Amino acid sequence: MFMKKSVTYKILNSLVLSSLMLALTMTNANAASKSFISTTDKQQLEQLTATAANSDLSYEIVESLTTEVGARMIGTEADKRAIKWAVDKMNALGFDKVWTEEVTHYQWIRGDVKAQILAPFPHRVEAIALGESVGTGEQAIKAEVVHFKTLDDLKAAKSNSLTGKIAFVSYRMERHIAGKGYGKAVGARVTGAQVAAEKGALAFVMRSVGTDNNRLGHTGVTRYKDGVKRIPAVALSNPDADLLVNQFSRNKPVEFSLKVTAMRNESVQVKGANVIGEITGSELPDEIVALGAHLDSWDVGTGAIDDGLGVAMVMAATAHIAKLEQRPKRTIRVILFAGEEVGLIGAKQYVIDHKDELSKHVIAVEWDFGLGKIYSMQANVSDAAKPAIAELASYVAPLGVGFNAANKARGQSDMGAVTDLGVPAMNFAPDGSRYFDVHHTDNDTLDKVSPEDLQQNTSVYTIFAYFAAQADVKFRN
Amino acid sequence: MFMKKSVTYKILNSLVLSSLMLALTMTNANAASKSFISTTDKQQLEQLTATAANSDLSYEIVESLTTEVGARMIGTEADKRAIKWAVDKMNALGFDKVWTEEVTHYQWIRGDVKAQILAPFPHRVEAIALGESVGTGEQAIKAEVVHFKTLDDLKAAKSNSLTGKIAFVSYRMERHIAGKGYGKAVGARVTGAQVAAEKGALAFVMRSVGTDNNRLGHTGVTRYKDGVKRIPAVALSNPDADLLVNQFSRNKPVEFSLKVTAMRNESVQVKGANVIGEITGSELPDEIVALGAHLDSWDVGTGAIDDGLGVAMVMAATAHIAKLEQRPKRTIRVILFAGEEVGLIGAKQYVIDHKDELSKHVIAVEWDFGLGKIYSMQANVSDAAKPAIAELASYVAPLGVGFNAANKARGQSDMGAVTDLGVPAMNFAPDGSRYFDVHHTDNDTLDKVSPEDLQQNTSVYTIFAYFAAQADVKFRN
Repeated sequence: MFMKKSVTYKILNSLVLSSLMLALTMTNANAASKSFISTTDKQQLEQLTATAANSDLSYEIVESLTTEVGARMIGTEADKRAIKWAVDKMNALGFDKVWTEEVTHYQWIRGDVKAQILAPFPHRVEAIALGESVGTGEQAIKAEVVHFKTLDDLKAAKSNSLTGKIAFVSYRMERHIAGKGYGKAVGARVTGAQVAAEKGALAFVMRSVGTDNNRLGHTGVTRYKDGVKRIPAVALSNPDADLLVNQFSRNKPVEFSLKVTAMRNESVQVKGANVIGEITGSELPDEIVALGAHLDSWDVGTGAIDDGLGVAMVMAATAHIAKLEQRPKRTIRVILFAGEEVGLIGAKQYVIDHKDELSKHVIAVEWDFGLGKIYSMQANVSDAAKPAIAELASYVAPLGVGFNAANKARGQSDMGAVTDLGVPAMNFAPDGSRYFDVHHTDNDTLDKVSPEDLQQNTSVYTIFAYFAAQADVKFRN
Repeated sequence: MFMKKSVTYKILNSLVLSSLMLALTMTNANAASKSFISTTDKQQLEQLTATAANSDLSYEIVESLTTEVGARMIGTEADKRAIKWAVDKMNALGFDKVWTEEVTHYQWIRGDVKAQILAPFPHRVEAIALGESVGTGEQAIKAEVVHFKTLDDLKAAKSNSLTGKIAFVSYRMERHIAGKGYGKAVGARVTGAQVAAEKGALAFVMRSVGTDNNRLGHTGVTRYKDGVKRIPAVALSNPDADLLVNQFSRNKPVEFSLKVTAMRNESVQVKGANVIGEITGSELPDEIVALGAHLDSWDVGTGAIDDGLGVAMVMAATAHIAKLEQRPKRTIRVILFAGEEVGLIGAKQYVIDHKDELSKHVIAVEWDFGLGKIYSMQANVSDAAKPAIAELASYVAPLGVGFNAANKARGQSDMGAVTDLGVPAMNFAPDGSRYFDVHHTDNDTLDKVSPEDLQQNTSVYTIFAYFAAQADVKFRN
């Protein structure tokens, strides 16, 4: 509906498709005795693969979500619209059952940030409140800034050494295909405010956790500690963090003004919902292949990358399978989690609500790592199921997906809470080099979605979901 | 001071330098009779070339301007600080004379923009006031939006067809090495508001004139027409323009809310200044080689690219020459123009103030085309001087600068006003492919400056300035 594919792209798709058909045939011919799905299943998988490789459905879904809903932080009107949108969309796509499960959280309102360097040279700077930060009230904080290169340096500061001051951590996240720089950088975002407050700081300012050079701050949740004063916490865009660092190079006192009108209203409860849809298994309806993504987003951007395209992929993969003449043996369940951004609260609610049913979740996968082609897959399954995973790997290999046989996968984000409780896990890793350019910023918009990459991603998820629902194997130990 | 060059880069510089020395030697040996500068001059040029190729001075200057001043729109306190900064810097760099010449303009205050799509699906959108736009006042305009794909489509709309509505032009600028997409796109920015107002529109909204996909609008001046109502004019970021276009694809009325607190105070005069510095010619002090850039910037970003690096290049080139034991024959004049962004008002004042002296401007060049390596040069000089320009071309060829012998150059931006009055022109063209990613946005910051490119640019300007000040030729017809 919204896509016009180029001829070149169609040819590429045909080539990939031919390789995939060949892989299916070869597995069929050479290793028939070891296959975990039947010859008929393989024909179905060929058909599904062709469907996914020529479908724009996942792009249409993320276009719909970002255009008709947009940013959808838990507790906002837009989140309510997103829930309705998801229910309607899954029904329209032919799911057998669609329902919602309530999730609650306290209210947080972003408000605005006005940040300025006052001395040695005055500048307006771009800053964004960290998620769930408290505000300053209407009165700006004006104070000297103390510069720390890392969170560890801040931790090493003496008690009370920051009394009456603003703490600034300038550590810059490094780019990495697997997003490994995030782990090293995000600690300051999560705990920087509490560490700074323990030393007496009035506010916490950090360089955004992001790999871009745009004047857009990266938000993301910060955590307070009981018994420690809650201080406002903001992230500067990378160019603004550079500018602040350059102020220090003049060896004069650096002063800052910060006004944050965010409100953290812990006494006000807001409601969200996990939205769940299924196509019911034809032979083993109580055995569940779980496909996850999160429906909520931060209140910046339109949540195209985080996690609109995950929502689109798991919906589209299931919809492709729903179009087959027959339902696969097991149930395929799509779980669109609520409130991932504010602390996986939908996932935490899900494992409570489905406690007695988790043993029937035969395998689980999420997509919450943004844009880019999948280049690697890894499972975490029983020894008996390892050859089945190898067979699956042969089906997705023509799409450029390598096989990591380590068998130590954990579900991504929300689904981690599910697989930590013993549910077998599958993890597909995309090229995440560019993910943290847009992650948690106003730049998380539809134009960042590559239709080609998304089609590959959706093809992989379609093949996985069908295979997992049909394979004659116990994934669980 | 601020740069740490890599070993690789130093080696590259050495290679370029060797080629350049060879070019100088060859010209010397094979075409001595045709050379427009002496053997001693060539030795000086070799020395200058080596100096520029190993100097970080231009980067240090743009770092200083963006860190110690930042955004500096005419009429602001920061513009006053920029003028003082420029005078101090040229004095510190050893210029022989430094002075300012007053320029006046009316006051414009940006204020804030709050823009929202109200229907069919509500979204907050990123918009920026076009330069010198009027505001809406405190009461937002809420109205239906009418979509035009181009300015021509808007022009073709019937009289009064936009009464009570907001006009939206969605034309997207194309990327081009010479920035040719700008000319096709900028018409809507300059005249869109007046055309829309003539059809009865309440406000004018356009897609930014820019090639990026960031949620940052591109500002730039808009013009009103006498006798036509002045309506607020804003530019959406590219992703927001996409979003608005996608709203129209639902075939439902699109409604918009726009609040712009900009103020255009034509009765309030503000003052700026052209800042001028010279190194005085040793033999022909009244003959002027003019190097221009503009000191002002928009009130977004820190004006690193537009035109901080131009300021840095012309200052550094002249400073390198000022370090020679002897002044060149002609005077080298650096002109840092005021108020370029609001309509070349510094340049217009300069040609008035220096009317009687323009015949003594032997050649003029500006740098106001941002970031990127220079790949081509073209002059506009007398027939007699064409071989001298060819000789100059041989000196900059090792730096990757091609020679366009068309001899039809016009000065860039401000200097166009000077060369239009008969002053011979030189134009150096950089790769402008990425310039309009940051042009007139908050993203115009120091991190966008490539030290390597800037060093090449400065080397070219240093060679040009010395050669032009020394060459035994009449550039003027």
